[in-house]
Amino acid sequence: MSNNEFKVTPWEVKGEVDYDELLKQFGVEPLNDKLLERLRGHAGSLHVLLRRKVFYAHREIGDWMDSYEKGVKAVLYTGRGPSGYTHLGHLIPWILTKYLQDAFGSDLYFQITDDEKYLVDQELTMEDIHRYTKDNILDIIAVGFDPRKTRVFTDLTYTKEQYNIAVRVAKHVTFSTARATFGFTDSSNIGIIFFPAIQAVPCFLPQVLEKRDAHVLIPCAIDQEPYWRIARDVAPKLGYRKPAGIYSKFIPGLGAGGKMSASMPETCIFLSDKPEEAVKKVKNAFTGGQPTIKEQREKGGNPDVCVIYSYLYSLFDEDDRSVAETYRACKAGERMCGECKNQLADKVAAFLKEHQRRREAAKKRVDEFLLKE
Amino acid sequence: MSNNEFKVTPWEVKGEVDYDELLKQFGVEPLNDKLLERLRGHAGSLHVLLRRKVFYAHREIGDWMDSYEKGVKAVLYTGRGPSGYTHLGHLIPWILTKYLQDAFGSDLYFQITDDEKYLVDQELTMEDIHRYTKDNILDIIAVGFDPRKTRVFTDLTYTKEQYNIAVRVAKHVTFSTARATFGFTDSSNIGIIFFPAIQAVPCFLPQVLEKRDAHVLIPCAIDQEPYWRIARDVAPKLGYRKPAGIYSKFIPGLGAGGKMSASMPETCIFLSDKPEEAVKKVKNAFTGGQPTIKEQREKGGNPDVCVIYSYLYSLFDEDDRSVAETYRACKAGERMCGECKNQLADKVAAFLKEHQRRREAAKKRVDEFLLKE
Repeated sequence: MSNNEFKVTPWEVKGEVDYDELLKQFGVEPLNDKLLERLRGHAGSLHVLLRRKVFYAHREIGDWMDSYEKGVKAVLYTGRGPSGYTHLGHLIPWILTKYLQDAFGSDLYFQITDDEKYLVDQELTMEDIHRYTKDNILDIIAVGFDPRKTRVFTDLTYTKEQYNIAVRVAKHVTFSTARATFGFTDSSNIGIIFFPAIQAVPCFLPQVLEKRDAHVLIPCAIDQEPYWRIARDVAPKLGYRKPAGIYSKFIPGLGAGGKMSASMPETCIFLSDKPEEAVKKVKNAFTGGQPTIKEQREKGGNPDVCVIYSYLYSLFDEDDRSVAETYRACKAGERMCGECKNQLADKVAAFLKEHQRRREAAKKRVDEFLLKE
Repeated sequence: MSNNEFKVTPWEVKGEVDYDELLKQFGVEPLNDKLLERLRGHAGSLHVLLRRKVFYAHREIGDWMDSYEKGVKAVLYTGRGPSGYTHLGHLIPWILTKYLQDAFGSDLYFQITDDEKYLVDQELTMEDIHRYTKDNILDIIAVGFDPRKTRVFTDLTYTKEQYNIAVRVAKHVTFSTARATFGFTDSSNIGIIFFPAIQAVPCFLPQVLEKRDAHVLIPCAIDQEPYWRIARDVAPKLGYRKPAGIYSKFIPGLGAGGKMSASMPETCIFLSDKPEEAVKKVKNAFTGGQPTIKEQREKGGNPDVCVIYSYLYSLFDEDDRSVAETYRACKAGERMCGECKNQLADKVAAFLKEHQRRREAAKKRVDEFLLKE
């Protein structure tokens, strides 16, 4: 453990995450330049989320590209737990997944874990879950996935095939392994104890449904990685390929605490926020600036702890020179927080406007994307 | 605990079962004469399995009859774990269920727990399970249930509705409750830990599918009772009625050990046995007789430990006077084992011949009984 204590599980992120330490804890590899160059080679360009190391770790993505190059079907799998309305943080893996789908022409299996979110959250009713699921699907479609190659499905509606595969997985996962991996306790309910078997299913679903070899790559936030350890452990026992993974850091919330929390709406930009609401949130966000303009000019700001800068860097300013200049000018006291806030607010407002247009259009297209029994 | 140690769980029966002790351990009631008279009143006559106390315990069967009398829909639920071919022991609850269906005109939900048997038996492959399921369904239909009122379904094929209800159940069952009820350990797999939620589903399925009040009665062997404790515990939390139950003793195997074991085919009469094979098994069965005819005439036999007598008493000699006379004559040394063996062999051969005729006819009727998604 590093000096600051932190904890990352699929359901809980506590403390300040040490991402390098997490590589060791989880036993995953950093994304190195060689791999990034291979990705650039296939995609034509390198996505800003890769250039800026928001996606920073992986497991066997090189092998996945090998499979693609050898003509083995290369498939993508990502997902969403419908516990509320979608915010920007949720979108990060989906944006990278869309980039990878475009680059590799991959089929995408998009699992909505309505069962998981019902089981883990005592407050959520089945009606809540169904409402969020219906809503979240619009955001998923709005990302722009190829409808001919994308299969969106929920555990509570696309169930038979999934349960059949999950039972095969579950036979090979003992309670003691599940407890060690996820931290289950005596008070964990028996549904969530079983759930890792359901979450493993899409790793194998392409092989089952298409009755052919397929290699699955999972883009997701690093906290989901424990699930794939279970899936990778079981894969050879069932005669399936182990999934590969590409893992992101977390996008910070807009407040000083650094967390995005759906229960504190001022910390998140929801995809359903009106652009002017989002602009207001950006304007109120925590920055690395000095208390006064005078001090900012004298001492310079601190972009390394600035949420606004982090958003520009991670996603919203794709121009490498521009973002480097922002960093330099901030530190030098030449750039005021208001300028960064305005820049980000414009970007976010434009992004939301476009997303919401696509989301509206998605309402008529749900059937094109849903995998049905 | 009684002096002799015994253990009864849904997957394991160890030692010599003290059925009275089990009433206390499981907290269920003995079937008293008043309840039997009520059953007789509805059915017109009392089934031999009730008269001879093979079914000897219950939970709230009086309430279930109250519901029926008040016009609440009274439903039956029983099941089968398809871990092999069906033998006579498996048939006992089904025979009583058929009698209750005829008496109360009840809908019957018949759950085939293919998932459970796959999960608990390391040796069984999915192909084995599917083969046994297909085969066992013919035996179920051959019992003579009313096709208009009987819904046979398997967990791996009638999955979506069941998984949706199971997830609601599972949210209210902690690992610690499941462990205390079923004896799960660290090496239990996560599928079987979840399974009690699936087994609870048919208790609520009639209420869900028909969107109306319904009271479920479960005829089964006493070892299955722990499942219904879970179901009863959760029912009010989900707004459903608690199921009632009627519980049987175990039918002994044909060998001296008293156990029926599918892995020792000589201890069981399989419903697929040729009548002449079954006759041979009966003739080789353990009796309460003396080593020689001379000793038998002098000392008399012991029907209380005799497997042959037990089969006649429990099921195959419905005539109360005849079976009492057999008991008396055996003890008095007037009746030799060969006579009882011949009597039972004839009954069993006739039973199998008729069952197998009905089983053959069932092959064309499977679709009439299957509940499909």
